[in-house]
Parts: sequence; C-alpha cells; structure tokens
Amino acid sequence: MVTGRPGEATVVAERRRPTPRADDGDATAAAVVDSVLDLAAELGGLAERPVEALGVVVPGVVDEERGVGVLSANLGWRDVPFRRLLAERAGLPVAFGHDVRAGGLAELTLGAARGSSDAVFLPIGTGIAAALIMGGRVQSGGGYAGEIGHTDIGHGEPCGCGQRGCVERVASSAAVARRYAARTGREVRGAVDVAEAVRVGDPDAVVVWDEAVDALARALLLTSTLLGPEVVVLGGGLALAGDLLTEPLGAAARRPDLLPTPAGAAAGRTG
Amino acid sequence: MVTGRPGEATVVAERRRPTPRADDGDATAAAVVDSVLDLAAELGGLAERPVEALGVVVPGVVDEERGVGVLSANLGWRDVPFRRLLAERAGLPVAFGHDVRAGGLAELTLGAARGSSDAVFLPIGTGIAAALIMGGRVQSGGGYAGEIGHTDIGHGEPCGCGQRGCVERVASSAAVARRYAARTGREVRGAVDVAEAVRVGDPDAVVVWDEAVDALARALLLTSTLLGPEVVVLGGGLALAGDLLTEPLGAAARRPDLLPTPAGAAAGRTG
Repeated sequence: MVTGRPGEATVVAERRRPTPRADDGDATAAAVVDSVLDLAAELGGLAERPVEALGVVVPGVVDEERGVGVLSANLGWRDVPFRRLLAERAGLPVAFGHDVRAGGLAELTLGAARGSSDAVFLPIGTGIAAALIMGGRVQSGGGYAGEIGHTDIGHGEPCGCGQRGCVERVASSAAVARRYAARTGREVRGAVDVAEAVRVGDPDAVVVWDEAVDALARALLLTSTLLGPEVVVLGGGLALAGDLLTEPLGAAARRPDLLPTPAGAAAGRTG
Repeated sequence: MVTGRPGEATVVAERRRPTPRADDGDATAAAVVDSVLDLAAELGGLAERPVEALGVVVPGVVDEERGVGVLSANLGWRDVPFRRLLAERAGLPVAFGHDVRAGGLAELTLGAARGSSDAVFLPIGTGIAAALIMGGRVQSGGGYAGEIGHTDIGHGEPCGCGQRGCVERVASSAAVARRYAARTGREVRGAVDVAEAVRVGDPDAVVVWDEAVDALARALLLTSTLLGPEVVVLGGGLALAGDLLTEPLGAAARRPDLLPTPAGAAAGRTG
C-alpha cells in the first residue's frame, strides 16, 4: 500500500500472497481477482484515510489502454478484463498495468531513471523482461514490447516459449539457481546464494554465474545498439548481487551508464 | 524538392549529387553545406512559388533538437551545427534531421506505417539502420537509436565499427554485391543484380543471398522481440528485390506484418 502526492510515494504497509492457481486460465484469473480484493480489504483496514484507488499489475502481454490481461503463458489466462472486473467489485477506480512497465514508470518518475528521456529498466527475477523508456515515456508496443528475456543469444538450449537460445534460460534468477543445483546436486534458495558462492571462489558457481552474465551482456549490448538508452537500471533478485553483476555488464553496454536500483524488486509496486 | 499541404507531399523536381569529400571531416562538412546551398539555388530556380524552407538530412549520429551532426564515421565529421550553418547562409528556415528517421517519419505520416503506433522502418542500402516508431512518434534515443546494422548476429566477421558479427557486414546492399563479387570474380552493379542471379538459379548468388536474408531475419526477430512493432516497412535498394526478401523475412518476424515500401529509397527525402 502506497500513499503520497504525485511524484512522491510512501509505503504504508506491505503484504505478500502467493499467486493462486486453478485448473485453467479463466479460473486462475477469477481466483486472482478474489485474492486482490481480499488483500485490498485487509490493507484498507490498516489505512488512516479511506482507500481512494487500487493499482494492480500483472505479468505477460498486457493492454494497459483496455485494462486487459491479454496473455500470460505462466498463469494460463487469455483476454481477462481485469480492470473492469476489479473496479466493479471494489467500487473504486483501478489503475491496471504490466508489472515490469509499472516498475519502469516508478524508476522514471521517482527512481534511478528520473529525468531520462531514454532508459531501460531491466528486472532480473524468475523471468527477464524490460521496460523501455523512449521519448520520456514508458513504451508498451501494444503490450508486446520489452521481451528481452526471449532474445536469442546463441546458446542453443530450448526455452518454454518455443524458441532456442533465449537469455532467460541461462540468466534469470531462477535459471541461475536451477543450473547451479543441476551442476552440483546442491539446492540453493536463489541466485543470491550462487553469487555468495562466487565470492568465496566456488568454481561451479563461477561457471554458472559467468554464463548468466555473458548472456545478459549480449542482450544488453543488443538493446543498447537498438535503443541507445542514456541509462540502464537493473532490478529484481539478481541485482542484489551488486558489483558481481554491474561491473561486467557496465563493460558490455556502450552508451548507457548502469545503475542498480535502490527500489530493487519493489519498483513494480511503486509504479 | 517536395511541395504540398501538411499530410501530403508532391515531388516537383529531383537532382542527385555525389557527397563531396575533403581532407578532413570539418572540410567535408563545409563542402556539404556549399553543395546543399548550390543545389537549393538550382531547385529554387525551377519552383513556381518562392522556396519557403529547406529540409536537410544526414546519416550518422544526429541530434535533431540542436540541429547538429554529432558524428559520421563514414564522412568523418563531428559536432557540425548544420542547421545553423545552412539557415544563416540560405536565409530560410531549415529542418535538419537524420536520413533514416526522416524516412520513418515519411512512412508514418504518408506511407506504409500510416496510423501505426509502433512500427519499424528498415531501409537496407549501403548501410543498415532503422527508424523506430513507438507510441506514434519516431524515437531518436538522443541520436543513438536504431543501429540495427551493428547488432551482432554471430557470423564473426570484423566490421568497420570495431565489433564483430554485425548484420551490415553480410546483409547491406553493398555487402551483398561485394560478397558476390569476391566469391565469383564477377563485378555487379548492386544487390539487385545478385537478386536477379538468384532468380535464374546461380548457386553463388543463392549462397550470398541466403546469408544476407538469414542475418536480416535474425536482426528483425531481435527487434520484434524487443519492440513488438505492428508493422515493419522495408526500404532501400535491397527492398527492390521484393518477394525474395519479404517472404523469408515475413516468416522470421513474430508480431509484425512485413510491407515493402512503395517510396523505396526515396522515403528519406519525403520525410
């Protein structure tokens, strides 16, 4: 829950719930709507003033203009009119958007990309997608822009999206943890554990980490070549690794400066 | 020379001059200014009404806001204030821009991308660069956007830009002609001659052409994945090859429809 005047934002309270899953996409979407309304009621009970509006963001292909979740491959839904469903049941105005682009909006308005005309916000978490800021606005490409995680950088491994060589297969936070576990037989909680292992010289961690950073560097170079951003803001779980990520990536980007985001994985909420 | 109301344009007369070259970039820029003013005077003599303004576009890194040619690697200049130099000597308002982005503006306003919110204009000539239309505007990325010709698609050959694997090294119109000549010892006037040789089954032409189309397909797929354009407009000399280019590229692009541009290589002038 966020409060503040335009251009400012203060987090008043925070709750986490796992995304509900049902048998099909429509049922999952309905369960998500229920869960959001339930959470909104709980947070509303903690607020000092009446809640004025809901802000909800989801992953996948999102049409912000129509307020529709067009497609989520992971969650299985298609063409769900979330904004209308939520507004009808909550009786409040609802701002509905895309999780990563909302993060980009937060970085542009309040964060590390403040004042930039051209920037890229790149959160690296379970998946990898980017918010593209061009001409001082977060660009949606009709809902399709920013799928940097599915650019082919030539490693040849198949991806769930149907293509091969996708950055996300080796460089997402989830991929780093999965590949380290597969290589060593040791389970880790996440990519940050692998980064810690790199710092103490674990050779398996170094191999997995270097492959991830090399993939990200290639994707960033492609992005910089195409878009010429002034600044690239890294976010998500992998950005918590700090210099292990920013130093090699800074060398790979041409025009941009690389800044880790202080908002980290929370930028989507603020946006 | 173009005339017409806003949203329309009619070509009244057309003249071609080779770009003058001098010992260094500053002298080349001064010679270009002289040549443009000379050409404007010649064209002005043909016009029925007084000339109201000049429109001038150049390649390289261009800052449209300041009216400056920031850098042209091929022509050697740096930070040339073309708009001011031309306006002072011509005594007319001067619109100054980037050759490919001006072409993108023409396609957006009058051509095959008319009405699109998100589109890519990709002229393939001596070099390869793209105009990126996002949110209904041609985006400049501070002058750096659209360098799709220098994305690395993995063929490993060195490029004049200092990197390896650049699309432009195998897929520009100039590269196709050069590679065919190098392979066969037969000089050709340009890529269109190579396309003609493909149509009659020349196996060397097929190899060179397929490598070019494969490189372009990879670059277009990267571009589509990042930007999600509704439409990709092909232009430049290579687009004159028609279906030999559009059929394989159409299969490689995900969201976009591929349209050859009727304006062809002339879109930059209209813009």
